[in-house]
Amino acid sequence: MKCGLCCSNCGKRRTFQMKDTRCGCGGTMLVEYDLERASRTLTKESLKNRQTTMWRYEELLPIEKNEHIVSLGEGWTPLVRLYGAEKALPLQKLWVKREEQNPTGSFKARGFSAAVSLAREYGIRKVAVNSNGNAASALAAYAGYAGMEAYLFLPRDCPGLIVEECIHYGARTFLVDGLIHDAGQIIRDGERDQGWHHVGTLKEPGRVEGKKTMGLELAEQLGWKLPDVIVYPTGGGSGIIGMWNAFRQLKQLGMVDGDMPRMVSVQEAGCQPVVRSMAKGEFVAQTEGVTSKPTGMRVPNPPDGGLIVSILQESNGTALSVTPKEICDAQADMGNQGISASPEGAAAWAGLLRLIDRGWIHKNDEVVLFNTSHAMKYWPWHAVRVPVVRTYQDWVDLHKL
Amino acid sequence: MKCGLCCSNCGKRRTFQMKDTRCGCGGTMLVEYDLERASRTLTKESLKNRQTTMWRYEELLPIEKNEHIVSLGEGWTPLVRLYGAEKALPLQKLWVKREEQNPTGSFKARGFSAAVSLAREYGIRKVAVNSNGNAASALAAYAGYAGMEAYLFLPRDCPGLIVEECIHYGARTFLVDGLIHDAGQIIRDGERDQGWHHVGTLKEPGRVEGKKTMGLELAEQLGWKLPDVIVYPTGGGSGIIGMWNAFRQLKQLGMVDGDMPRMVSVQEAGCQPVVRSMAKGEFVAQTEGVTSKPTGMRVPNPPDGGLIVSILQESNGTALSVTPKEICDAQADMGNQGISASPEGAAAWAGLLRLIDRGWIHKNDEVVLFNTSHAMKYWPWHAVRVPVVRTYQDWVDLHKL
Repeated sequence: MKCGLCCSNCGKRRTFQMKDTRCGCGGTMLVEYDLERASRTLTKESLKNRQTTMWRYEELLPIEKNEHIVSLGEGWTPLVRLYGAEKALPLQKLWVKREEQNPTGSFKARGFSAAVSLAREYGIRKVAVNSNGNAASALAAYAGYAGMEAYLFLPRDCPGLIVEECIHYGARTFLVDGLIHDAGQIIRDGERDQGWHHVGTLKEPGRVEGKKTMGLELAEQLGWKLPDVIVYPTGGGSGIIGMWNAFRQLKQLGMVDGDMPRMVSVQEAGCQPVVRSMAKGEFVAQTEGVTSKPTGMRVPNPPDGGLIVSILQESNGTALSVTPKEICDAQADMGNQGISASPEGAAAWAGLLRLIDRGWIHKNDEVVLFNTSHAMKYWPWHAVRVPVVRTYQDWVDLHKL
Repeated sequence: MKCGLCCSNCGKRRTFQMKDTRCGCGGTMLVEYDLERASRTLTKESLKNRQTTMWRYEELLPIEKNEHIVSLGEGWTPLVRLYGAEKALPLQKLWVKREEQNPTGSFKARGFSAAVSLAREYGIRKVAVNSNGNAASALAAYAGYAGMEAYLFLPRDCPGLIVEECIHYGARTFLVDGLIHDAGQIIRDGERDQGWHHVGTLKEPGRVEGKKTMGLELAEQLGWKLPDVIVYPTGGGSGIIGMWNAFRQLKQLGMVDGDMPRMVSVQEAGCQPVVRSMAKGEFVAQTEGVTSKPTGMRVPNPPDGGLIVSILQESNGTALSVTPKEICDAQADMGNQGISASPEGAAAWAGLLRLIDRGWIHKNDEVVLFNTSHAMKYWPWHAVRVPVVRTYQDWVDLHKL
C-alpha cells in the first residue's frame, strides 16, 4: 500500500523506485503510505485475527501483492519481562525484545523478508549485501527460499559461525580484507556488470520498512502504549530509523498516544561515531581508530548518520559507548537470566546499567532492551574456508581461476 | 487445571504427584484435566485474544497459579509452507514447524517451561537432567530465569556449542563418559543426597505436557484441522506422546474432527529402537551397536518405548531410519530453502523423501515436518573445558578436590 518515497530530511517527494534512495539533499528517501486508506483496514480489532508474523502490518509494508511476500516466520518475537532484574536494579518495568527468535536467529530477518519480497515483486534474481554477519545470513536464507542468487561480502574477521551459516543457506560467500564499507565498495563496483541488486543498509527501500515492524510490534505488545525508554545497540541505524518511523505512523493513525520513547543508541568504545556525533551535535563519521569487535555495531560511517542523530535528539534520547569488558560481563548477566544474548544485546544491557548509575534512567521508567541475536553465533570459530578478496577486481580474478 | 494422573497403559488413576510417574503396570502416568471445565473458557474464539506463547493453552497445562509460570517466550512457533518443495516433490501441502525459533533455539524449551514452572509451584530449588544437548541447555535457561540451581549431565561427545550454551546460562555442567542413560544413572544415584529434582524424559509430569503444546498449536495454526501425516524425529519420544495426547484432548473438547494424523518416527540408522520395535510389533530397547551421532535421536532405551510404538500403530503411522549421509544431504536441501535445519529436522526431511519414494506418502497428502533445533548448534566445536565423570561417585570426588 505504498504510495511513493519521501525524504526524511527535506520532505521532498518522488514516485517509488527500487534504487537511489538517497535524496539530492543527502537525506534518505523512506516509503510513504496512504495512511487514510490504511486506517480503514488496519485497526486494533482487525489485528486480533491476523497472522503472527511482521506481515500482520501489511498496510504499512511496501509490497503490493501478497503472493510476492517471502516469509520464513519472521517478527512477532516475544517481549519478555525480566522480573528478577526489575527487583534488583530496581526499575518499574523491564522487558527484553527477543529478536534472536527470528528465523535466522537475528533481527536481520525482518529487513530481508521485506527487501527480498520487494525484489521478488520487481522481478530481481540476484541480490548482494555487505554485512558484519547477521544481515548476510538473513539475506542468504530469504534468497534461498525465494530461489534467488545471493552474493555476500563480509569483513574477514566476522564471526565464523555466521559465515558458515551463510554457506548452509547456499549463498555465494566471500570474506573481505577490510571493514563493512570496503565490502560495500565491492558491490558498488560490480553491481552493474554482475546485475546485483544491492541490499546494503539504506541502499534500497525495503529493509528499513521491515525493521519498522519492531516498533509496530512493541506498541501492540504493550497494549498500544509506548515505553519510556528503548535501549538499542546501534550500527547502521536502520532499527532506530525504522522504529521511529513506526511510532510516527502509529501516532498519525491514532493508534498510540502519549509521549514518544527516549531512544538510546549503544555502541562499543572502539567504534562510536553516533556517540561522538551526539556530543558534537551533528553527525561525523569515524574515519580512524576503529578497534572494536566485528559485531553489528561496528559501522564507522553509517549511510545516514545524520538521521540517527536527529532522531535521538528529537526523542530526548542519548548515545553511549560501553567497553568489551562490560559487554562480556553483560553477556554473563543476561545468560544467568536465561537469555541467549549477542554482544549487541549485551551492550544494551551494559548501557542500561550505566544509564541507571548516571541517573538518566529512573527507577520508575519502563524500559525495553533489544537482544538482536543469539549468543552462540559470535563464539570463536576458525574452521571456515571461504575465499578472501580486497577489491571487486580480486573477486573477478577469483572467478577466472 | 490438572485433576490427577492417569496411566496411559492400564488407565489407572491417582492423585497428582511430582515423582514416580511410572505406573505399577509399567505404563506412564500422564496428567489428566477436567475437560468439561476447560471447555468453558478454552474456545476457538477466546484463543484469539490470548498471548502467543504455549501458555495460551493454560487450561491444558498443569500449573495452578499463573504467577508460577516460568516463560521465556516459548511456543507459537511459525508453521512455514515450503511452496518450492511442494511443487518439486510433488506434494499437496508441506509445512515445516520451526521449533528452532523457541527461546533456547530448540523445541526443548516447551518441556522445560512446563517442568520448571511445576517445580516452582512445588517449591523446588535444584533441578537436574541427563540430555544429549538441547534439553540440558533449555533447563539451564529456565532454571536461570527462575533462580534455581541446574545440574546437567551430557554424554561427552555431545555438541560442544550446546555444552557452551549451558555454561552461558550459568548451569553446573558435566560431561559423562557414556550414553544418555548412563548420565541418567548418575542423577538417580545422587538425587536423594543432593536434593536434585530429576527432570529427565518422563521422570516428572511437566515436560510431556509442555511438548503437548506442539500438537495444540499445529491444530490451531491449521485452522482446527489436522494434517494427514506428521514426520517427527524421535529419541525419547515425549514429542510423539505429547502431540498424540494433544490431538485426543482436542477431539474430546470437540475442537477438531476428522481423521487423526499418521505419525511417523524418524531415527538414525545407528540407533533405531523404535524402528526395530515397529517391525517386531512390540517395543524392545537397543542394547548394543549404538553408532549414531550424538543428537536428540540417540536414545537406545526410551523411558516408555511401548507407548511410542502403540501410538504409531494406532495412528496407522510408521517408523524408519535414515543414514548419516542422507541427513547431511537433507541439511543442505533444507538450508537451500532457507531453513536452519538441525540433524534431527534434516532426518525428518530425509524420512519424507524415503516415504514418498516408497509410496507411503501420496502426492495429495498434507504433511508437517518438525525442525527441532538450529543447524548451527551441532557444528563441531572442540574448545570446551568441562569436567568429565563416569559415575555419581566420580562426581562426588570431583567436588572434594
